[in-house]
Amino acid sequence: MIEVEKAREKIQHVLAQQKEVETVSILEAAGRVCTEDIYAKVAVPHFPRAGMDGYAIVAKESQGANPQEPICLKVTETIFAGDAEQAFIKAHGTAVRIMTGAPIPKPYDAVIKQEWTDYGETQVNIYREITSGRNYGEVGEDVYLNQKIISKYQLLNSRTVGILAAQGITEIKVLAPIKVGILATGSELISPGSPLVSGKIYDSNLYTLASLIQTSGGKIVFKEYCSDDIGEISRIIQEKVNEVDLLITTGGVSVGEKDYIPHVIQQLEGELLFHFVNMKPGTPVMASLYQNKVLLNLSGNPFAAVVNLHVFYWSILAYFMNCPELNLEKRTVQLTEDLKPSTLRRFIRAYEENGFVSLKSIVHYSSVFHNTLETNCLIDQPAKKQLSKGDYVTVYYWKF
Amino acid sequence: MIEVEKAREKIQHVLAQQKEVETVSILEAAGRVCTEDIYAKVAVPHFPRAGMDGYAIVAKESQGANPQEPICLKVTETIFAGDAEQAFIKAHGTAVRIMTGAPIPKPYDAVIKQEWTDYGETQVNIYREITSGRNYGEVGEDVYLNQKIISKYQLLNSRTVGILAAQGITEIKVLAPIKVGILATGSELISPGSPLVSGKIYDSNLYTLASLIQTSGGKIVFKEYCSDDIGEISRIIQEKVNEVDLLITTGGVSVGEKDYIPHVIQQLEGELLFHFVNMKPGTPVMASLYQNKVLLNLSGNPFAAVVNLHVFYWSILAYFMNCPELNLEKRTVQLTEDLKPSTLRRFIRAYEENGFVSLKSIVHYSSVFHNTLETNCLIDQPAKKQLSKGDYVTVYYWKF
Repeated sequence: MIEVEKAREKIQHVLAQQKEVETVSILEAAGRVCTEDIYAKVAVPHFPRAGMDGYAIVAKESQGANPQEPICLKVTETIFAGDAEQAFIKAHGTAVRIMTGAPIPKPYDAVIKQEWTDYGETQVNIYREITSGRNYGEVGEDVYLNQKIISKYQLLNSRTVGILAAQGITEIKVLAPIKVGILATGSELISPGSPLVSGKIYDSNLYTLASLIQTSGGKIVFKEYCSDDIGEISRIIQEKVNEVDLLITTGGVSVGEKDYIPHVIQQLEGELLFHFVNMKPGTPVMASLYQNKVLLNLSGNPFAAVVNLHVFYWSILAYFMNCPELNLEKRTVQLTEDLKPSTLRRFIRAYEENGFVSLKSIVHYSSVFHNTLETNCLIDQPAKKQLSKGDYVTVYYWKF
Repeated sequence: MIEVEKAREKIQHVLAQQKEVETVSILEAAGRVCTEDIYAKVAVPHFPRAGMDGYAIVAKESQGANPQEPICLKVTETIFAGDAEQAFIKAHGTAVRIMTGAPIPKPYDAVIKQEWTDYGETQVNIYREITSGRNYGEVGEDVYLNQKIISKYQLLNSRTVGILAAQGITEIKVLAPIKVGILATGSELISPGSPLVSGKIYDSNLYTLASLIQTSGGKIVFKEYCSDDIGEISRIIQEKVNEVDLLITTGGVSVGEKDYIPHVIQQLEGELLFHFVNMKPGTPVMASLYQNKVLLNLSGNPFAAVVNLHVFYWSILAYFMNCPELNLEKRTVQLTEDLKPSTLRRFIRAYEENGFVSLKSIVHYSSVFHNTLETNCLIDQPAKKQLSKGDYVTVYYWKF
């Protein structure tokens, strides 16, 4: 039995990273991983920009101005946002009426807000002294020319989309999504939508997994059921492995007589990476390498499968996409109650709020799945350790 | 100037809530809002289910068993997961070999894990005493018959998808997405992809907003630019207002000579909800009701626009979809440095980790947008209040 961290390492050691690139519109770029460093070809702003509605002035000409002794300047023109930049304007004793976002002509070096003037049209009285640079948006104040604005493998969001737009960029190269196949094994499984049969259950794992992986930006290239049949499991894995970056199975990994996944991998001469991890639920989780693809084999129990998935999928995705930000969000918080010690490391459904985490008064059997909806995280409880109210623990949040 | 909370209330007071329903596959349901209470038509499990690989026994027949004095039971058959439920089996002195997930026949009331037996095939030696109910998944242990499994207006996630699948459900009714129109106003704006012109800037707001709203599940029904032209702004609003649930504009809300949005609303005889809110940046944010639709008018400055959007869009979405969970995530955390007092309530870009928030050593001018990428939240700094290192503040996380 190995540790979660060691198991993750073993996967990363053999997992190929995504090389496939695609070009998308910046409007489709949020949530994607950029594949190149991007440098600013346009400074933002690319001209000195008025930060206020008011008057562009030479700041030193406002020296000594106050409401009793205003300084009067001649207004030579009005510049609106969108107007073209103007050449040097002979300035002594003059001001320019200017609106937010408009280009400030030389030699003006400040904008006095209109509320501090008499709003004069041909000449303006200035009631305050201001210093050079006031409400004066310097060239490159936000983004300077050639500044690296996006880094290779950066996760894009709506603000990065805006930043790219401000550069005039409309398309961007991003990593293609991870291609995932899901195989739910178990002779007891029937597909939702079909009639219920004695001894059978509607499969839920296929749906939970597919939903989560899709929502995370992954591409489900196949999702199938099969019964506990060595030949069938083996055939599907062989047929489908080349279509995917990651093949996830559920069920058939424990020690029951029809837990065939380990046999299939052996028969296919796959390289076993690990089987049985120090975690509860989902101890029998397994991973192997076959045809250069990682096969991640989760427990069949729905709660165990989703915990296995959270513990392994996000770290696989983050590594595959070269983007640590894709990892599961975690946080160090305080327990509001004692935890029963556990022989194995345990992931406990729980509810965290403002730095405090509670188990809630719900059933914590691994055979119960529905009440995970009342929780927002998993407590990572170390093995064989007494943890009491007030102690700090790590929690991982349910994602999607 | 009104408070943020009052401004939100004024919007909610007039905003129609979403009534439009659509049916989607459960695989497309994550992130959507359910429109009905859903009750379990199938108990989970719907038969007593073995929780372990082992032997189904009558627990009291294991009384006194230990490794030195095992109790021997006759094995009458083997039941696998997926096998049909069996009628009552005459039980005295017998056991049934059983695998995880298989239906446990009556009168057996416990499953002893195989590791505590000699794995016998025709007869089995039991090395431990177990109690009734051990590894015995009762009918309805996870979900009982007629249990409410999903509530009306519940936000669905990948686990709810699995829970629906376990009921045999393949489709679900959800609220249609909010339909949003975006109009970026400003004569200085040109579209990314076109050549840069003196005094003009590439618009970024349209893209930041569209990206965020799309990623939040909203539907962008139009996105357009227009110059600071009363007629054009007015024409677009009139033409498009009926296509949307919410119309968002950027720019033209302040006190400049060409800040025409307030005039347009007046001219159209829209009902002003508010103009100028106690918040910085984005003080001149405005909202009105026109043709029974809410128009939300944000500042044109990119940082102010995105702060306005975070402060108002999420609360609008949550109210419109009847789902408070859609609101912006917030948290009470401790300051790691003093805050300069501010005349207005201020939203400060910041970085929060494990309960502590810092301003980072970055420029906090509202004319700077790019460095918001180095932050993960906004500190909500109350007006005119001295806040020092160690004090608690509310932060709101950037979402998408």
